[in-house]
Amino acid sequence: MNLKFQKAQLVNALGIVMKAVSTKTSSVILESILITAKDNRVFLDATDTELSIQTEVDGIIVNPGGVVLNAKLFSDIVRKFENTDSLIELDVDKEFKSTIRCEQAVFNIMGIDPVEFIPMPQIDKDDFIKLSQFSLKEVIRQTEFSTAISDINRMMGGELIDVKDNIAKFVTLDGHRMSIRNIELNGDFENQRCVVPIKSLQEVMRIIDSDTQKDVSIYFSKDHILFEFDKTLVLSRILDGEYFRIETMLSNDYDTKVTVSRNRLQSAIEQAMILIRENEHKPLIMEIESSLLTLSVNSSLGFMDAKVNIEKSGNDLKIAFNPKFLVDALKVIDDDFVNIYFTNAKSPCFIRDDKNTYTYLILPVNFVG
Amino acid sequence: MNLKFQKAQLVNALGIVMKAVSTKTSSVILESILITAKDNRVFLDATDTELSIQTEVDGIIVNPGGVVLNAKLFSDIVRKFENTDSLIELDVDKEFKSTIRCEQAVFNIMGIDPVEFIPMPQIDKDDFIKLSQFSLKEVIRQTEFSTAISDINRMMGGELIDVKDNIAKFVTLDGHRMSIRNIELNGDFENQRCVVPIKSLQEVMRIIDSDTQKDVSIYFSKDHILFEFDKTLVLSRILDGEYFRIETMLSNDYDTKVTVSRNRLQSAIEQAMILIRENEHKPLIMEIESSLLTLSVNSSLGFMDAKVNIEKSGNDLKIAFNPKFLVDALKVIDDDFVNIYFTNAKSPCFIRDDKNTYTYLILPVNFVG
Repeated sequence: MNLKFQKAQLVNALGIVMKAVSTKTSSVILESILITAKDNRVFLDATDTELSIQTEVDGIIVNPGGVVLNAKLFSDIVRKFENTDSLIELDVDKEFKSTIRCEQAVFNIMGIDPVEFIPMPQIDKDDFIKLSQFSLKEVIRQTEFSTAISDINRMMGGELIDVKDNIAKFVTLDGHRMSIRNIELNGDFENQRCVVPIKSLQEVMRIIDSDTQKDVSIYFSKDHILFEFDKTLVLSRILDGEYFRIETMLSNDYDTKVTVSRNRLQSAIEQAMILIRENEHKPLIMEIESSLLTLSVNSSLGFMDAKVNIEKSGNDLKIAFNPKFLVDALKVIDDDFVNIYFTNAKSPCFIRDDKNTYTYLILPVNFVG
Repeated sequence: MNLKFQKAQLVNALGIVMKAVSTKTSSVILESILITAKDNRVFLDATDTELSIQTEVDGIIVNPGGVVLNAKLFSDIVRKFENTDSLIELDVDKEFKSTIRCEQAVFNIMGIDPVEFIPMPQIDKDDFIKLSQFSLKEVIRQTEFSTAISDINRMMGGELIDVKDNIAKFVTLDGHRMSIRNIELNGDFENQRCVVPIKSLQEVMRIIDSDTQKDVSIYFSKDHILFEFDKTLVLSRILDGEYFRIETMLSNDYDTKVTVSRNRLQSAIEQAMILIRENEHKPLIMEIESSLLTLSVNSSLGFMDAKVNIEKSGNDLKIAFNPKFLVDALKVIDDDFVNIYFTNAKSPCFIRDDKNTYTYLILPVNFVG
């Protein structure tokens, strides 16, 4: 095989497939990438068995063929060449000895026969939805934090994607809180439902563009989910089993409704968190009284309170939370003002907009006083 | 005590003294700062016993006094207030209970009696030199890397400052290499000589400006060195004992002189380093032959060579180095072309300019072939 690449294009393609390369593995194949040149197209492939990525890269094919190379080593070599428009030559002999030539340097490294590589599973492309890369990137960012990697309940490490009547609902929950985002789809799609490991979605989020004009197609099959965008395919296993029955956790009833500046509330909570040492688990106490919300923390480091102006309807209330859970939700909301709905000090609060774009459920904690 | 500060000014002053706050200590005092308000001036002080920093901060003194506060906690509280021009009030009662008020938040934390604090030692200000903050910052950056923290030879963890005939020489060495920088002083100063812990100089480097118009005065005393600049004093212990006799290691004789593009050489060496795993200690082999320098590495990961055009006078030579040592020196040289002087494969090379601004000595390593 003999190929020529422009450095910038190869670096970019390597950056994409490297997301599926295992860093902690004893398997030579899992820390490698497959380079294949045939039918005038060059593909890079990587897999960690849970996640597989394939991307096409522009290249000149002098001789077609294939080779498996150590991903980090090949990527380090390519990235170290000085000029982004340098031409990089990859020459592989029959024993897969690989020579990389560029500028005034020559590297010789050992490759592996492509037959050793684990090919990307082929799936049916019957069931799919389509949305903008921007929307998908945003929705993952806005929900990824309320997951938990747990052997006891693997579902908490996944994100539910539930498509119904052309609305895609994205849900994560970790036992203390739940994040829900709804996206209206443009088009007419079949209902779909699956749970994707959050790590896979996070890698997709890192690869796709923030472009509202570019689409991503998502294909659903029995064991896998496939994301197709630009010149790239990302295939992930999905989680087996039933997701939580989230409808039973939701409620539109409330006894207290608070409308508050998101920025002001977030910054007051972050101030309060200064007094909470890691692992101290001190609650943030919220007192809602007429048009004032008083936040306070009493810890081994000291005492603080901060006052925030609110608009309130319903009862006064004293309730306590893990402040981090509130901040995590507030940080990913774009609205200047948020509505928070409470029932009582033992029931979850809901941060929710009127258009039903998002719902963040947060359980309160016990407090003394 | 009751003081008022503008947030931005207090944050800036805290950033300076925090450099002397210990993070790993069981001493409450060493992780604290002293705040003193008297004679219409407010000072912040911190010390880790080896290094002491004092800086003045603008503030309104409603009631003078003093308090010792946990540095990280106080700094976290102050930095979290939203607006840079917010007014922060610090109120300390007779039991040193401290109240910090700003915007709509109130913090109560416990302070300590200032008599518990370790005061900055007073030193004579007879012997001193003066140079620009820019020069001092640069010279530390250009020499700090060839030091070694070692119990066997503590001098390797220090930097020699040797003032003679109004030239300040800065020297570090770690057993494998030596870095020398000379600065011509503007003014007539007494000769001085001392060895400063590199950690102290690194903190000074981080605090001072890159401003060529602002000066720093350096005072020398028996046990200490004092840096005075802007509104700040940095005092460090110096290392006891004799520094290495560096004159015996230097030589102006050579058998081979190479002139080479610094950028091109550095980037070729960095390419070669890709094939050297940490702890593998593979040498970089340099072959100097007429107008070509060939760099090569042969490691468990593969083989590489790179060619660099040079201007050569004297003998051809084959010699090997730890490539990191070459790169460390090349990175801090500003010249586009550097001169490298060699004697033979067993003797150090010298990277040196004609004006005697810098000399970098690097010992070669053994190689097979």
